[in-house]
Amino acid sequence: MLRHCTTNGYCDRPIGTGAINVAPTIGVFDSGFGGLTVLKALLEVIPQSNYLYFGDTARLPYGSKSVQTVARYACEAARFLEQQGAEMLVIACNTATALALPQIKEAASVRVLGVVEPGAQSAHAASKSGRVVVIGTDATVSSHAYQKALASLKIEAREKACPLLVPLVEEGWVDHPVTEQVASIYLQEAFSDGFSSADVLLLGCTHYPLIKPVLRRVVPTTVTLVDSAESTALAARELVRSTSESNSQERSELRFFVTDSAEKFKRLGQQFLCRPISNITHIDLKE
Amino acid sequence: MLRHCTTNGYCDRPIGTGAINVAPTIGVFDSGFGGLTVLKALLEVIPQSNYLYFGDTARLPYGSKSVQTVARYACEAARFLEQQGAEMLVIACNTATALALPQIKEAASVRVLGVVEPGAQSAHAASKSGRVVVIGTDATVSSHAYQKALASLKIEAREKACPLLVPLVEEGWVDHPVTEQVASIYLQEAFSDGFSSADVLLLGCTHYPLIKPVLRRVVPTTVTLVDSAESTALAARELVRSTSESNSQERSELRFFVTDSAEKFKRLGQQFLCRPISNITHIDLKE
Repeated sequence: MLRHCTTNGYCDRPIGTGAINVAPTIGVFDSGFGGLTVLKALLEVIPQSNYLYFGDTARLPYGSKSVQTVARYACEAARFLEQQGAEMLVIACNTATALALPQIKEAASVRVLGVVEPGAQSAHAASKSGRVVVIGTDATVSSHAYQKALASLKIEAREKACPLLVPLVEEGWVDHPVTEQVASIYLQEAFSDGFSSADVLLLGCTHYPLIKPVLRRVVPTTVTLVDSAESTALAARELVRSTSESNSQERSELRFFVTDSAEKFKRLGQQFLCRPISNITHIDLKE
Repeated sequence: MLRHCTTNGYCDRPIGTGAINVAPTIGVFDSGFGGLTVLKALLEVIPQSNYLYFGDTARLPYGSKSVQTVARYACEAARFLEQQGAEMLVIACNTATALALPQIKEAASVRVLGVVEPGAQSAHAASKSGRVVVIGTDATVSSHAYQKALASLKIEAREKACPLLVPLVEEGWVDHPVTEQVASIYLQEAFSDGFSSADVLLLGCTHYPLIKPVLRRVVPTTVTLVDSAESTALAARELVRSTSESNSQERSELRFFVTDSAEKFKRLGQQFLCRPISNITHIDLKE
């Protein structure tokens, strides 16, 4: 199982159990920092791969933007990661996956994995009542991508947009009374009126794993929290196993590309990745 | 004096007192919606001008981004507004003004007015103690633009970043207990330790006028709230009076340009402008 760091310090990374030998270069894309929680999970289950992480920090957040804009940004990022040598892409951004996975797949010539499908699979596995509450950004919720993915697994979903949770995490209020109050307002509503039997809370945004203890406190004790970082990493490992064209690598190399300040990414990013970040390149994407 | 609408409904716009006859086309630039509070003030004091409003909604918010990125975005916007026929530019975004006013002036060939200088002038006029608290985004506060502008007027300033206030306004929680609690946390700190004698709160972000009642409740009763929308509009009127190359116009025309969804801009924007919004064009800025 994955280990999560409980504070802002760095956690040690278990290597070994479940690790595989094949090692394609994996491109990981997010609008900014949240995707680092997925990269962290990937590093644990596929430790020998090389990783290229792209954070579109000059244009974040995506969660309040339109389908057209998010699709354009995400396709640019996918093409960029391929040009840099990515042999497989993980869209570690719920909004980009929910709004634009088909367009990204069309823009890319390598395999593309999003976070919605693995997250929905995990929620399905964890639910006994067949009812799941999904929280995410405005854009993710409006797309109903999770509702559709869960419906195909015979799970009834209630989706709830929680736009204040990302800014609260980015303010560093990860265990603050205000964050608990805001989460409580959002979730009390979500778990009422016919959804009191829901037994899974699916975290449909990569920022939310950082406030798991707060979320744990405001939902009924019978509810299981599922985040897509771990399930996406496991799905990626399956894909890697089935990929024949992959090089072999002794140890992983990490490279980061960001569209805004590299310094800020370094500072904030290590809270998400739980390890120091270096090798960051600022890029412009031809704007 | 300007009228503010007290609810999300539309307020009537007083025309007459203080209105002038010259009417250049004024380009108003903001990262998104907040600049509409400045446009609202401009419409009241220069009602006969034509206005071109540019909201960079696909790349908002600017408040968490670097100097280089904000300067690049703002200069692109300034050039675009000039191409559309703006004869004068009002940078209705505190972050863009604070970080990039010199670069914008260099990129533009028409007169450029920012919000920092007029805001500082108003704070100076309102303060008896010579101490002012300024609130704004992370980027605005880090630039110390307000501190410098106030120091030149012999005013001592304490700047406090309040990154959660913009998301709270955009969530529509303009009179919500959580917003009051967050504002209280930020401002109790700002008005303590040597700044208990501060008698002005300068709102260094165009979103903040929407939560004036909340801010009023969490600061000492002796404190005057100053926002730069009104003072910027009055400064613009002075500039217009001194501009010789201006056309004459019977009634104002409003055109809006946005980089993300026009529909969303229409919906959210009218809360800031306090009137219905039409004539919106989506543009791409060559990305």
